[in-house]
Amino acid sequence: MNCILLPAANFSNESAHINEAKQVEHISQVLAAKVGDTLKIGQLKGNLGSAIIADITPERIELCEVKLTIAPPPKLNLTVVLALPRPKVLRRLMMDMTALGVRDIILINSYRTQKSYWQSPMLGRLDEFVLEGLQQGVDTVAPRISLQKRFKPFVEDELAQLITNRAIIAHPYAELSFSQYVQKQLENSEPPHSSVLPSMVFIGAEGGWIDYEVELLIKQGCQAVHIGPRILRTEAAVNAILGQWLLYQ
Amino acid sequence: MNCILLPAANFSNESAHINEAKQVEHISQVLAAKVGDTLKIGQLKGNLGSAIIADITPERIELCEVKLTIAPPPKLNLTVVLALPRPKVLRRLMMDMTALGVRDIILINSYRTQKSYWQSPMLGRLDEFVLEGLQQGVDTVAPRISLQKRFKPFVEDELAQLITNRAIIAHPYAELSFSQYVQKQLENSEPPHSSVLPSMVFIGAEGGWIDYEVELLIKQGCQAVHIGPRILRTEAAVNAILGQWLLYQ
Repeated sequence: MNCILLPAANFSNESAHINEAKQVEHISQVLAAKVGDTLKIGQLKGNLGSAIIADITPERIELCEVKLTIAPPPKLNLTVVLALPRPKVLRRLMMDMTALGVRDIILINSYRTQKSYWQSPMLGRLDEFVLEGLQQGVDTVAPRISLQKRFKPFVEDELAQLITNRAIIAHPYAELSFSQYVQKQLENSEPPHSSVLPSMVFIGAEGGWIDYEVELLIKQGCQAVHIGPRILRTEAAVNAILGQWLLYQ
Repeated sequence: MNCILLPAANFSNESAHINEAKQVEHISQVLAAKVGDTLKIGQLKGNLGSAIIADITPERIELCEVKLTIAPPPKLNLTVVLALPRPKVLRRLMMDMTALGVRDIILINSYRTQKSYWQSPMLGRLDEFVLEGLQQGVDTVAPRISLQKRFKPFVEDELAQLITNRAIIAHPYAELSFSQYVQKQLENSEPPHSSVLPSMVFIGAEGGWIDYEVELLIKQGCQAVHIGPRILRTEAAVNAILGQWLLYQ
């Protein structure tokens, strides 16, 4: 936790309290903070700032001199459409996409997504993983999340109106490389090149997308691109691909 | 495992055998492969290719019609100097850096590296993690790895001759952003821009580098750059940063 995020209800005037067990434990045990220490805090959906610890009990921490004056960092102009991964990696992926500042996350079914993944209790804990990601990335605004259990109806009926500035599909067998794609956009745009990157990226889970899925997406105007001959773990791929947005922010 | 890597000793003429327990288990259980199926294989330090399964026993798999005709993908012209992370994340980091094609990995001590990390049995298993990374990334050539338990002597006495084309330090409090850094290099170079990225990057573990470390590195000619206001998990940061090299390969 690089900051402690609290809901608006926990604030009153210049004081606030923390009663979430994980946060209390982190502050007293990991940070080993004491009365009088300054904490980096934020208000969910609000500003970031600091506060001073006024009192610590095993269940509750009281804060005073609360100052929330720093706006959260801007979100990336980006929707990630991710094939629902194994429950085990879902937590870290949600955390990382949130920490990186993705604005919209769509978890979608794919041919290689096992049906059992949609039954995972992890899907009921997305808010928790998002909170972890916000506290890691020092942000207060959660990404919008939607679940799409049916690939074809989503792609055919809903996708087109969600693409604001081009969409790409990460696909190892694409002819065009991500770097060629960016180069093309650079040639067709004027600096500052903030819009050379697409506003939507499709990333498959282990095993990637099948040809049928890729073709359906291409029919809706998406461009398939590869990121080189190397195949990465889903987690590594998501971070490596989204890292490109860091360059153009 | 996106390919099965075998040492040269396991090959003879057009046949080969697999007797490594993990590999045998993966082929028979995860892939559920049968006699007659084709496997994607590679020879450590050699070529990639395919082979056909001639026989399967619980301990050993015989291969025939071995064809090793594909050169492994080129390595990134990159040395990652990584503050030794928690043992728990070391495995995945070694795998990911290997899968991404980093040529040299230097694990170094830092102020925020706990002393106990250097005693971890994980450090004795680096070859195993590298093999996992090669089999994930479909490569046959391991990165060179070195351990530097003393930060200052390494930086002062050895670093300069290891930097072939600039070095950067990932540091959240740097004034220059990674994107400004790349922009500057683009302005000073002609296409193709394969050398706009540095040949060495320093990445801290949790908590990052302390000022003293950053100053010592700057004195040796390294440039500190930040990747935006968001703070990422070490794993996410490594992949997001190294992802930049995918654009210029």
